[in-house]
This record gives sequence, structure tokens and C-alpha cells, in this order.
Amino acid sequence: MATVGVDLGGTKILVASVHHGKVEDSAKVPTPTGGPESVVEAIAELVEKVGGAKEVGIGAPGQVHHKTGVVVAAPNLVGWGREVPLGPLVAEALGGSVEVRVDNDVNVAVLGEHHHGAAKEADDVLGAWVGTGVGGGLILGGKLGRGRTGMAGELGHMTVVAAGGRRCGCGQFGHIEAYAGRGSLEAEARRRAEEGAQTALVELAGDERMKSSVFAKALDRGDQLTGELIDDAVVALGAGLASAVNLVDVGLIVIGGGLGDKLGPAFVGRVEEAVRSRLWAGSTVRVVPSELGDDAGVVGAAALFD
Amino acid sequence: MATVGVDLGGTKILVASVHHGKVEDSAKVPTPTGGPESVVEAIAELVEKVGGAKEVGIGAPGQVHHKTGVVVAAPNLVGWGREVPLGPLVAEALGGSVEVRVDNDVNVAVLGEHHHGAAKEADDVLGAWVGTGVGGGLILGGKLGRGRTGMAGELGHMTVVAAGGRRCGCGQFGHIEAYAGRGSLEAEARRRAEEGAQTALVELAGDERMKSSVFAKALDRGDQLTGELIDDAVVALGAGLASAVNLVDVGLIVIGGGLGDKLGPAFVGRVEEAVRSRLWAGSTVRVVPSELGDDAGVVGAAALFD
Repeated sequence: MATVGVDLGGTKILVASVHHGKVEDSAKVPTPTGGPESVVEAIAELVEKVGGAKEVGIGAPGQVHHKTGVVVAAPNLVGWGREVPLGPLVAEALGGSVEVRVDNDVNVAVLGEHHHGAAKEADDVLGAWVGTGVGGGLILGGKLGRGRTGMAGELGHMTVVAAGGRRCGCGQFGHIEAYAGRGSLEAEARRRAEEGAQTALVELAGDERMKSSVFAKALDRGDQLTGELIDDAVVALGAGLASAVNLVDVGLIVIGGGLGDKLGPAFVGRVEEAVRSRLWAGSTVRVVPSELGDDAGVVGAAALFD
Repeated sequence: MATVGVDLGGTKILVASVHHGKVEDSAKVPTPTGGPESVVEAIAELVEKVGGAKEVGIGAPGQVHHKTGVVVAAPNLVGWGREVPLGPLVAEALGGSVEVRVDNDVNVAVLGEHHHGAAKEADDVLGAWVGTGVGGGLILGGKLGRGRTGMAGELGHMTVVAAGGRRCGCGQFGHIEAYAGRGSLEAEARRRAEEGAQTALVELAGDERMKSSVFAKALDRGDQLTGELIDDAVVALGAGLASAVNLVDVGLIVIGGGLGDKLGPAFVGRVEEAVRSRLWAGSTVRVVPSELGDDAGVVGAAALFD
């Protein structure tokens, strides 16, 4: 039986059998909202659906204690207002003879890119996952850098505007995520539209969630407000990622996540330019797009067993 | 014979025999300006003066390739406009049977604090050395985190004001060092004084270098401009160090360096408050002053052999 990767997200669970970094069989369901038990049950069913497993790797959103498989906090999962021993629960649901490893979702996505995607050649890598929020993962000296409490790589909450910055979803100000996260971009666009700004973003999204594809379309159409918002996102990411390079001295940055993927190589190229403009002349730091895209989560979760 | 630590600075060379983290005998000279050969000779003489050595650790300012002992770039050393194999040259000057290790000066200072000073209890530590510039060193998982090119920990050039920030000595804008480095503080104070601001800083320093002790005295006297400059330094350090905690998840920050030492615990306490105010509620990150002070360099250099 294969190694199975589980990408546990706030809206869907994607499960795949993975062999040498390639997805062989996959299945998904919307994430159950009945609390941890319902999620464990769904994961176990999906694992059986893709052929069962000897080893199961899980990427979970939030703070994870990877040695015990306990999800310490997961604000994006409904009804998870306490610590959940996700690894042991899934192992039990699968009959007890399966080894289960759990880590943070962005950590495993970056691990996937490191083992099987855009960061195969590099030992020191920062992954910047630009989605509804902005997450990050660090590979240092060829290994996941998890930090003291497992929270290393919290790129989105690095400050790039120390005073008078835009409000972040976390309540603080001037964070990268406040300028580059899809959720913050939507909030800012709706605020400016209410103040009278014209923008294709509201036309395209209507009352629905302003999806990453909406930002990509509006940008393609030359929408002015979208251009301004993305310019600000590039500045924030450029400053924050250059700061990260100064601090941890990585040579490669991989940009992934829903918004990163939809805005694509043109956006990544602009971020690369912004990062380099803030580093010393002759810096060889590269910024590249994710290669695994939507599969980074499951491939990376399986890579916990590489 | 003992282990000897060498603190090679831009203005002086301090050499000490060190036993279990304690300085036993020490000697110093102004740093020779005749290029690498004159520095190597001075180091060799000082090593003999403190009783000779079996092992010599050197902390050098700039970029160091620690595996080979080569100083790649050292802009603060006169006549070092090329790579210098400092380790091999010092070993040769000492007769060839001495083992010599070289690392960046702030890296070794932080290593000293980790093994024998304020950071003995912590495995994940960031050292912030606030002197003429602002340097940094990282201990991750109990070991020096040097990064891909040996430049990890370049805290001073992290951006805290992404647009419209104060000019840094490196030519970029909005860096921590532009607000918290002694050199930048002096430049800003003299600029404002020329524009007509009254300040004790200029009275105390005259035409001489505005030393760290001058800032400490002016602050004690309640000088308004000094208060404003130090307020800005606290904001910049608070934002930058909180960003660093978000990225690498250290639990302890040690503040050292000439200005950090002179401003002392009151300043460090303000920085701690500023860092915590930018982190999630309940963060247990601590910010503490250096314990080794001026000895951090030699004790840390010797600690390369611990």
C-alpha cells in the first residue's frame, strides 16, 4: 500500500495516494463542520477510497505539534476550539496499524516543493503561500525549520509598515498579509468601492467571495484599483521577503497559494524584482512560482515520510 | 595551553585566554591599518602575550566563510578589499600547530551568550547587536544558524518602513539600522541640529564621534531630540524583532552591542514591550540584555571550540 497525503483545508479535504512525489489516485470532500470527529471520519473514508495506506501524512491549517500529531490551534476549522490529537485519532480510525504524521499545511506544501517541485535544488528555501492569508514555510539546511513552538514561517504577520499601516485580519497593523492576502485585498477593495471607487472587482464578484481568479481577471482587464492593490502587495512582499532573506539567508523563494498561483509568473517576476531591489547588488536570490500548484499539499504531506 | 578568543573589530583587537567561558588573561591593541598582514601579526603577538594557545577562535566583522576561515568581505577593516584567508594565515603565524576557527563577530558574540551568558537556557535565540550598525546572530535548535552564504542574522537591514523610510548607511531606506544604529542616530541628530534643533547630543559630543555614552547621558538629562530618536529606535526594533519572531519562532532575544549596553536594561525593557505588543496575546517571548558585555566577542570566539 502506498503513502497517502492529506491536505486538510478550511473548505475542502483533498486526499491522494502519492508515489515518488506523483499523485496516483485522489479524492476530496467539502470539509465537514461537525468538529474534529467528523473530520477524522471523512479523512479515514477518503484514505480507504484511494486504496488504503501504510503511512498517512497530513497537512493541517494552524499550529501543529508535529512530534505528537496534535493540532494545537486551528481557527479556520469549525468547532476546533481546543487541542485535537489529530494524528492518533486518524491512526485509530484506520485500524491502528497505520503510521500518521501531521504538520502545518504550509510547512508540508513547502516540503513538497523542496522534495518534488520548484525547490529541489536548494537547501535553504522560503515558501510564501499567498492565499486568503499569507503563510510561509522554511527549509533551512535541507530540513523543515519549525522553530520553538512549531510556528516558524509566519511570514504574513511580519511588519513592513511600522506605523500607520493597513489593518491586518489578526487585528494588528502593517503586516504583509494586510497588503497581500486575498482576504485583506477583498476588504480593501469593498471599502474603496463603498467610498465610490469604480472597480471591475465588485462587478465580477458581486456579493460572492472575491476569488483569486477575480483578481487575476480584473488585473488582465487593466482595472485601475486592482492595479493599485497589486502594486501595494508587490511592495509589501518585496520588503518582507527581502527582510526574510536578510534574516535567514535563503537563496530561493517559492511563491504558491491560491492568489499566487492565479496571478502566476508575471506577479512572481514582479515580486522577484522587488526583493532584489532591496538586497545588496549582486544578490543571487531567486523568486519562482510553485510547481506543484494544488497538489503541493498532498504531495508535501506524503513527503513527511520521504 | 588554553583556548584563546579574538575579537577583531574595526577600531581594536581584543584577545583573551578563556577557560569555561571566563576570561583569564587579556590584551588589546588598536586595529592596525596596514592591511591583513599587519592584523595577522598583531593577533599572533597578542595570542603569545596571553600565554599562547592550542586553539584560537576569531570573531571578524563582515562576511566569513566559517568552514575555511576565509573573510570574504570586511568593509570596516582598512585595506581588506579582497578575500583574506584569515584562519590559515593566523595558524601559520602561530607556527602551524594551532587550530584556528573564524566566524562573523556577531555570530560569535551570540554564541558566547548562548553558551555562557544570557541565553544559556534557550535553544532558539536571536541576538540583536545594537552598535554603530545593527547586527544579528541566530541560534536555531541549539546551533548557530549561518544560512546559505554565512550571512544569516543580518537584522539591521530588515525593512520596517516599506516606503518613505529613513535612509540607511547601506544606501537603502527604512531599515532597522537607519533608526537604531548609533551611526544613523548621529547622522540624524546632526542633520536636525543643523536645521536648528537644540540638543544636548551636539553639546556633549562636540565635533567628536557621538559615542553611545553620549546618547545615554543625553537621554538621562531628558533631552527632547534624544528622546524622540530613541522612541523611533524602539519602534523600529520592536517591529523588526517581532517580524523575526514570526519568521523563525525564537523564544529569547538578547540585546547587546555598544549602544544596547550603554542604554541598558531600561531600553531593553522598552524593546521587549514593543516586541510583545506586536505579537499574539500570550506570547512568552523575552527580550533581555547581554550578560557578557564587552567580553561577548572573546568568550564567544573561544566558544567556537566548546
